[in-house]
Amino acid sequence: MSKHGPRLVVPIDLKKKPWEQTLPLHNRWHPDIPSVAEVTVGELFRVEMVDFSGGGITNSYTAEDIKHADFSIVHYLSGPIRVVDTDGIPAKPGDLLAVEICNLGPLPGDEWGYTATFDRENGGGFLTDHFPCATKAIWYFEGIYTYSPQIPGVRFPGLTHPGIIGTAPSMELLNVWNERERELEKNGLQSLKLCDVLHTRPLANLPTAEGCHLGLVKADTSEWANIASEAARTIPGRENGGNCDIKNLSKGSKIYLPVFVEGANFSTGDMHFSQGDGEVSFCGAIEMSGFLELKCDIIRNGMREYLTPMGPTPLHVNPIFEIGPVEPRFSEWLVFEGISVDESGKQHYLDATVAYKRAVLNAIDYLSRFGYSKEQIYLLLSCCPCEGRISGIVDSPNACATLAIPTAIFDQDIRPKSSKVPVGPRVVKKPDVLKCTYDGNLPVTKNPGGAT
Amino acid sequence: MSKHGPRLVVPIDLKKKPWEQTLPLHNRWHPDIPSVAEVTVGELFRVEMVDFSGGGITNSYTAEDIKHADFSIVHYLSGPIRVVDTDGIPAKPGDLLAVEICNLGPLPGDEWGYTATFDRENGGGFLTDHFPCATKAIWYFEGIYTYSPQIPGVRFPGLTHPGIIGTAPSMELLNVWNERERELEKNGLQSLKLCDVLHTRPLANLPTAEGCHLGLVKADTSEWANIASEAARTIPGRENGGNCDIKNLSKGSKIYLPVFVEGANFSTGDMHFSQGDGEVSFCGAIEMSGFLELKCDIIRNGMREYLTPMGPTPLHVNPIFEIGPVEPRFSEWLVFEGISVDESGKQHYLDATVAYKRAVLNAIDYLSRFGYSKEQIYLLLSCCPCEGRISGIVDSPNACATLAIPTAIFDQDIRPKSSKVPVGPRVVKKPDVLKCTYDGNLPVTKNPGGAT
Amino acid sequence: MSKHGPRLVVPIDLKKKPWEQTLPLHNRWHPDIPSVAEVTVGELFRVEMVDFSGGGITNSYTAEDIKHADFSIVHYLSGPIRVVDTDGIPAKPGDLLAVEICNLGPLPGDEWGYTATFDRENGGGFLTDHFPCATKAIWYFEGIYTYSPQIPGVRFPGLTHPGIIGTAPSMELLNVWNERERELEKNGLQSLKLCDVLHTRPLANLPTAEGCHLGLVKADTSEWANIASEAARTIPGRENGGNCDIKNLSKGSKIYLPVFVEGANFSTGDMHFSQGDGEVSFCGAIEMSGFLELKCDIIRNGMREYLTPMGPTPLHVNPIFEIGPVEPRFSEWLVFEGISVDESGKQHYLDATVAYKRAVLNAIDYLSRFGYSKEQIYLLLSCCPCEGRISGIVDSPNACATLAIPTAIFDQDIRPKSSKVPVGPRVVKKPDVLKCTYDGNLPVTKNPGGAT
Amino acid sequence: MSKHGPRLVVPIDLKKKPWEQTLPLHNRWHPDIPSVAEVTVGELFRVEMVDFSGGGITNSYTAEDIKHADFSIVHYLSGPIRVVDTDGIPAKPGDLLAVEICNLGPLPGDEWGYTATFDRENGGGFLTDHFPCATKAIWYFEGIYTYSPQIPGVRFPGLTHPGIIGTAPSMELLNVWNERERELEKNGLQSLKLCDVLHTRPLANLPTAEGCHLGLVKADTSEWANIASEAARTIPGRENGGNCDIKNLSKGSKIYLPVFVEGANFSTGDMHFSQGDGEVSFCGAIEMSGFLELKCDIIRNGMREYLTPMGPTPLHVNPIFEIGPVEPRFSEWLVFEGISVDESGKQHYLDATVAYKRAVLNAIDYLSRFGYSKEQIYLLLSCCPCEGRISGIVDSPNACATLAIPTAIFDQDIRPKSSKVPVGPRVVKKPDVLKCTYDGNLPVTKNPGGAT
Repeated sequence: MSKHGPRLVVPIDLKKKPWEQTLPLHNRWHPDIPSVAEVTVGELFRVEMVDFSGGGITNSYTAEDIKHADFSIVHYLSGPIRVVDTDGIPAKPGDLLAVEICNLGPLPGDEWGYTATFDRENGGGFLTDHFPCATKAIWYFEGIYTYSPQIPGVRFPGLTHPGIIGTAPSMELLNVWNERERELEKNGLQSLKLCDVLHTRPLANLPTAEGCHLGLVKADTSEWANIASEAARTIPGRENGGNCDIKNLSKGSKIYLPVFVEGANFSTGDMHFSQGDGEVSFCGAIEMSGFLELKCDIIRNGMREYLTPMGPTPLHVNPIFEIGPVEPRFSEWLVFEGISVDESGKQHYLDATVAYKRAVLNAIDYLSRFGYSKEQIYLLLSCCPCEGRISGIVDSPNACATLAIPTAIFDQDIRPKSSKVPVGPRVVKKPDVLKCTYDGNLPVTKNPGGAT
Repeated sequence: MSKHGPRLVVPIDLKKKPWEQTLPLHNRWHPDIPSVAEVTVGELFRVEMVDFSGGGITNSYTAEDIKHADFSIVHYLSGPIRVVDTDGIPAKPGDLLAVEICNLGPLPGDEWGYTATFDRENGGGFLTDHFPCATKAIWYFEGIYTYSPQIPGVRFPGLTHPGIIGTAPSMELLNVWNERERELEKNGLQSLKLCDVLHTRPLANLPTAEGCHLGLVKADTSEWANIASEAARTIPGRENGGNCDIKNLSKGSKIYLPVFVEGANFSTGDMHFSQGDGEVSFCGAIEMSGFLELKCDIIRNGMREYLTPMGPTPLHVNPIFEIGPVEPRFSEWLVFEGISVDESGKQHYLDATVAYKRAVLNAIDYLSRFGYSKEQIYLLLSCCPCEGRISGIVDSPNACATLAIPTAIFDQDIRPKSSKVPVGPRVVKKPDVLKCTYDGNLPVTKNPGGAT
Repeated sequence: MSKHGPRLVVPIDLKKKPWEQTLPLHNRWHPDIPSVAEVTVGELFRVEMVDFSGGGITNSYTAEDIKHADFSIVHYLSGPIRVVDTDGIPAKPGDLLAVEICNLGPLPGDEWGYTATFDRENGGGFLTDHFPCATKAIWYFEGIYTYSPQIPGVRFPGLTHPGIIGTAPSMELLNVWNERERELEKNGLQSLKLCDVLHTRPLANLPTAEGCHLGLVKADTSEWANIASEAARTIPGRENGGNCDIKNLSKGSKIYLPVFVEGANFSTGDMHFSQGDGEVSFCGAIEMSGFLELKCDIIRNGMREYLTPMGPTPLHVNPIFEIGPVEPRFSEWLVFEGISVDESGKQHYLDATVAYKRAVLNAIDYLSRFGYSKEQIYLLLSCCPCEGRISGIVDSPNACATLAIPTAIFDQDIRPKSSKVPVGPRVVKKPDVLKCTYDGNLPVTKNPGGAT
Repeated sequence: MSKHGPRLVVPIDLKKKPWEQTLPLHNRWHPDIPSVAEVTVGELFRVEMVDFSGGGITNSYTAEDIKHADFSIVHYLSGPIRVVDTDGIPAKPGDLLAVEICNLGPLPGDEWGYTATFDRENGGGFLTDHFPCATKAIWYFEGIYTYSPQIPGVRFPGLTHPGIIGTAPSMELLNVWNERERELEKNGLQSLKLCDVLHTRPLANLPTAEGCHLGLVKADTSEWANIASEAARTIPGRENGGNCDIKNLSKGSKIYLPVFVEGANFSTGDMHFSQGDGEVSFCGAIEMSGFLELKCDIIRNGMREYLTPMGPTPLHVNPIFEIGPVEPRFSEWLVFEGISVDESGKQHYLDATVAYKRAVLNAIDYLSRFGYSKEQIYLLLSCCPCEGRISGIVDSPNACATLAIPTAIFDQDIRPKSSKVPVGPRVVKKPDVLKCTYDGNLPVTKNPGGAT
C-alpha cells in the first residue's frame, strides 16, 4: 500500500525546547530569518508547532508560571516556509499567498491546553483593572470537546485555529511598523488620553534582543544581533497577518496573505483549541501545541489586484479570509450589550473598545450568578466560542457592542427566569488566584471582580 | 368562525403624519410621556410603526431629502405601552420586562425601504471623512427578499428587526444621561483627542424642543415645554435599551428590558428590513415602516436579580437579549480585517473603532472592484446581513476587527481568483450622489472614496 | 405615496364557501378547468387559499368533524393561474415553470390550524392499525410559533409551506394517471400482498363526481359531468407536482414544475403551518388557510432540457426544487431508527415504508414516556419539524429509516438519562379520542397504541 | 510532561491482515465471540479499524477487485469491547450502553478511500437493474475535504462516521434473526412479489462458515465451527445497531445501544469518510480504514426504561441516537423527487423504496447533463452528503421521497437556468467500467444508465 496524506515539513518534538527542534523556531518577524522548508503550490503538507510559550506554561494547577511568564519569548513560530509554484518559481512581492487550512488539531499525546490571565504588572489583559491577578485554568480535550477542572459545569466543542499565521515583512514594512509603534510608546499616554487611568499595560512591545529566537540565524552572532535589534515582536496582528486571533479560521478556511518577500516565507503558531471573540484575558484562548495540514496557492499580482493600500505607503494592506464550512452549530444565544459609557459613568464618543469592555463585564456579572466566581467567567469568556459584535457604531455618542454566548455550553439553563432558579451551594473548584501585593493604587470600581 | 391572532394596540395610518395618528407618536425619552395603550402579560398584541423619519424620506430616486433631513425629529416611536400582569398589577421599577418578538414585517402596501448616507454637514456617518455627500438607495421587498435599483446584482433575505425598543427612563436616569452627554459635548473634542481630524459630527444630541413630539402631551403647553427641555433624544442606545441596532433581534427573539417607571412604558420604532453590524452609513439599515407582534412577561425583581449596575448609580445596567431561531442561513463568508492603524498610518492603542473602520474601508475597496462604486458598497455594507466582529482586543497595540460578508448576496463570485475574473463594462445605476460644495477642508486621504 | 407589494390575484373571503369565492376554487386536476387569473413572468403576486377542507373542519375541541369528514371534497385549490412572459406569450408544454415562494403565512384573523387522524374506516393514516380512531388537536399561532392545548409542553416555530402546488395535466397525462391507478385499485391487494393485513385504507382514489368542484366550470352541466368523470383527485403527488407535502418548501424556495398545457395553469392549496416528514397521521400537518406571495419565470424548453422521462411515455417526469434560506435552526436532534421488520416480527426485503413505520412507532413509544399519550405523540410527529430519512437502503434485508426530532420543541429534556428523570403525574389534556365501535378485527399487536 | 489523550485499546497495523492483528478482528455477530479489550465508563479510548474489506479492495484504478469481491468476509470489525462501570461491574442485559463519539478520522498515512458498485451478479446495489457493472472511484483526503480523479469537478467536506457499531446479540436474539431471515430467503421472492423483476440480489445473507472470522476463537476448531454455523452476517442493521449506515453519526454523536450480553461487548467497523443517505450503490460510502475516540456510559435498566419492544419478543428494539454539533454547513440544496410509480409506469401503493429509487434516478439523469456519465453520478450520490427524505407517506397511492443535494460540492452552478448554460466539451475521466458479459436478460428500461 502506498502512503498517502500530508508531507510533514515542520516536525516538533515536544521533549525538546523550541530552539532545539530540528527546524528551530523563531519568535520575531524579520525578512532575514531564513526559511526552514519549501512547499509547492497544490501539495498538502503538515506543520507542527509548540504552544505559544514553548512549554513555559505547564499543566500544573497553579498560576505561578503565569505570574512570572517571560514575555520576551512569545510567540514561538514554526517556519518560515517558502512557497514556490509548480515550475519552482517562488511567490513574489505583490502576489497573494492563499493558504487553505485542510485540517488541524492538537499533537497526539498532548491533548490539553490552558487559559490564563496575566498579572497586572506582567502583561495584564482587557479587564486588568478589574482582574489584576494571575489566574490559570487547565483544559483537557476529549476529541472535539474540552472541559476544565477549574471551571466545572461547562463543556464545549472547539473551533480550533492558529492564532498566528503571517508572511515575512519586507524591510520597508518592518520600518513602518517600528516607526509607528515607537511613536505610540513615546507619545501614546498623552495623545491617547490613557493617562486618566493608571495604565500598566505596555502600549507597544518594541524590538528587543532579550528572549529573541531567530530560527536558523545562529544566536549571538553579529547578524543575529542586527536582526534582533530591529525584528518586530509577534504580539499584534499587522499588515502581514500575524496574531489576528480570528477564532473562525478553522478547518476549511482560506487565508489570503500579501507577499512582501520572495518565497512569501510564512510562519504560523499560537494554536488555539478554542477562543472567544476578543480573547479578552489576553492569554485567553485555550493555548496548546498542535498541527496544521495546509495547501497553498499563489495568486500572481494578487496583492495589487485585490488589496487597496490604506495609508501613506503601498504596504498598508490587510489579509482577506474565507471561513470554512465546519463550525460547531449552536442554536440558542444569550446576548449581553455594552455602550460606550465606562465604569465611572463617563460618556465616551462612539468608542467600541469601551462598549465591548462593558458588554464583557455585564456578561461576567450575570454569569457569576450561576455558581461561578467572576475570575472563572472571565477566563471562560476568553476561550469559549462566544461572539463579540459591533452592533451600532454611529448612534452618537454610544457605540453598542454585544457579546453572544451559546447557552448549550453550560450544564444548567442560564436564561433569566420568572422565578429565579435556586442556585444553591454549588461545589466549584475556583481557579488558583494568586495573592497580589500591589501598593494600593488600584482604581476604585464598584465591581472590582478581581479583589481578593 | 371566531377571530384569532394578535390584538392591534397601536395602529398606524400611513396617510397621516406621525402626530396625526390616533395614538400620536413621540420622539423623545421621558418618564412623563403618558402611555397610549396597555397590554397584559401573555397576550399577543400588534404594534405598528412609521419609518424613523415619519415619511420625511421618500422613495424618490434622489438624495435631496436626505441632504436636508431634519434631525430634530428622529425617531418617531410607537407607544409608550404600559404592561400589567394578569392581576392587573403593573410592572414596577426593579422588574425586568421580557418582550418576545413573535412576528414582524413591513406594513401591507408599503413594502419598500431606503438606505442612505447623510451629508457630512448634516449628520454624517461612520466614514463621513471618506464619503462626505448625501446618497440614497431605494430597496423593494419581494417577501423575504429585497433588491435595489441603485445597487444592482445584489438580492438578499432580510433579518428584519426594530432598531429601537426601550422602556421609559426614570427622572433619575434621565438626569444621568443628560449630565454625562452634556459633559461630552462640552469637553469631548479636547478630552477625546478628536480635534486632530476636522470633526463635523455632533458629539452628542442634547435635549431640544425643536421637532419634539411627546405623544399625548399637548404641544406648546407649559408641561410640553418642560418635558421637551429635558427629554432625551433617541439617537443613542442607553440603559433602557433604545436605539441598540442589534441586527439579530428578529422573529423569535426575546428582550429583557430593565423597568424604571411603573408600567414599564416601553416604546418601539425605527424598523429595519435588514442591517449590517455597525449600521455604518448611519441612516444605514433598510429603513421602513412596519409592524411587530409581541408578547410580554414581567420578571419581578428581575433587574435586581439579574443585572449588576456598572457605574456610580444602581441604574447603570443594560438589557439582555436572546436571539430567535429563524435567521437567513449563509454558508460562505468573505472576511475583511482591520487593525487600529488609521488611514494616515498612525498607530492607535487597541482602538476597536479605528480597527472596524479600517475593516469596512478594506471591504469597500475590495468589493468596488466588481463593478460597483464605493458609495454603492458603503450603502450595501450598512444594510446587508454582514457581521462585524471584535476578533482581538488584547494584542497591543493593535485591536483586530473583522467584517464578514455572505458571498451569496451577490450574483457573481466575489472571491479572489488565481486569474482575475474579467469584470467587463457592467451597466450599473450609480446611486444619486449630490454634488458637494465644501470649502476644501476635507482631510487629504489616499483613497477618498467619495470623490466623484 | 405609491403602493408597493404583491398584486392580489386570488382573493379569499373566509366567510364564504369555497365555491362562493369570487374566483371559485377547484378540487380536481384536469386540463379543461379554466384559469381564473393570469400573471406575468417577474411580477410579484399574491394567492390566498382556504384550508384543505374549505372550512369543513373547525376549531372546536372535538374530533367529530374529523370522524365524519367528507373525503370527496379534498383539496380545495386556488387557481388555475395562467403564466405568460413579458411579451404575453404563455408558457408552453415542454417548458419549465419556475415558481419562487417569496413569502407565505396564515390569513390575518385566522391564525390557527389543526392536526388530525382520520378514523380507520374513513381515510385512516400511516399507523391506522395502531391508531384506529379519529383524533384532532388545535394549534394556535403566535407569529412564527405555535402551541396546542391538546399537546401541552410543546412550542415550535413553523416551517410553513403549501402542501400542494402543481400544473394542470394534459389529457394524455391524465389518462396515464387514471389507467395506472385504476389498475392498482383493481389488482393491488393481490399483487402488492397487502391482503395479509386487514387493509382498510383506499388503495387509490379514482375520479368521482361526488364532491367535485371545477372552478369556473358551471356545475351540473354536461361539460362539468364529463370533466368530473375523468378529473384526477388531488390526494397523491404526481408528475405535475401536486400534493408533494415537501415540508421544506417555505419562504425563498423555488419550484421547477413541468408544463403540460398552454399557460401552465398552476394551482396551489393545502397550506401547512408546519409538517413533519411523512405527514404520518395523514391529516397530519398543521392545516390552515393562508397566502402565498409568488414570482414566476418560464424556462423555455426546460422540461425537455432538464427532466428525463422515467417510464413508458415522455410525461413520466417529476418537478425539481430548491430549498429557501430561512428555516428554523435546531442544533440538537434525537434520532429514532426503524428496520424493515414489521410489528409481527416478519422480515421484509429493503422495504423503506416498513422501516419508517417502525421508526415512527419507536419514537411514539419513547416520547410517550414523558407524560404524553401515544395519540398525542402521533399527532405531534405528524406536524412538528421532524426529519424522516432513508439512511440505508442496500443492506439486505433491512432498510434502515430514521426519524430525527429537534429536542428544543419540548419544555423538558427528553434525552435518555443515567438516572431516569421522574416524570410524575403530569396534568395533560389528552386529545379528544372518539370511542370506536369496530367489530374486533384489529390485528393483534403488542403495543396497540390507539387502544382506549 | 505527562501524557494525555485517549488510551489505545484496539490497535491496527495496516501492513497485517485482519486476522493477523494483535487483537484479531471478527466479521460475524455472536454472543460467544470473546471480548478483546475492556473499557471503563468515563474513560476516553481509541479504537482503530481496517476498511470493511480488510484491504481486499485497493487504491488501484480498476474495478477488477470490486467485480470479484469476496462477500463472505464483510465486514471486518474491531472488538468486541467489554464495558464496566467504575466499580468494575459490567454492563448487563437490559441496560443501555451510551457511546459518545468524541473524535474519528482516517488512520495516518492511509488518507484515501473508495466508492464502488458491485457487479449485478456479485452483490449489486440499489439501482443494479440500471447499473449492472462493477465500477470504482478512488477518493483522496485533504484534511476535511475529499476529491476523486474519477469524478472531477467535485470536492466536499466529509461527515465521517462508522457504518457499523453494535452490541453482541444474545443467543435468543440471534435465533430470532436467523429464523426471520431464513424465512425471507425461503419465501421472499413469492411473498414479496419480487419475482416480477429478474431479481439477482440475495434476499438475505444467512450464516456461513466461508470467510468467517471470529476474533479470539481459534479457527477450525469445533467451537469455531459451531459459532460459524449460526453467527449472523454483518450486512444488515438489526436490533443491536450494527450496519445502520446513519451518515450523521459523526463527531460528538451519542449512540444508545441496547445491551444483550454481559459486558455489552460492542464492536465497530466499516468507517465511512462520507456517505449519502441510503448509500445507494451498496459499496457506496467512501470506505476507509480509520480510528474512533470513544467514551462510554452505562444507563442501568435503560433498555427496559427507554425502549419499547415492538414485536413478538422483548428483544425487538432499536438503538437511539443523538447527532453531534459539528456538521458541514451547506445553505443551498437542489431537491429531486420521486413517487411510487416505477420505471415501467406501474403504480405501487405508498412504497417509499420505489419512490426513493425514482428520486435517485431523477437526480442521476439531471446531474449527468453537466458533463458526467450516469455511473459517475450514481457513485457520487452514494457518497456525497446528500439527504434522502420520506416527504409524504400517506397520500395514496403515491409515497413521495426526496433527495437533496448540496450545490456547493460542484465547481459549477448546477441549478436550472433560463438559458441553458453551455456545458461544452468537458474532459472528464470516466470511472473504470468493466465490460459486462451478461446473457442479455437485462430488463428493458428507457434510460438504462449502465449501458456501455
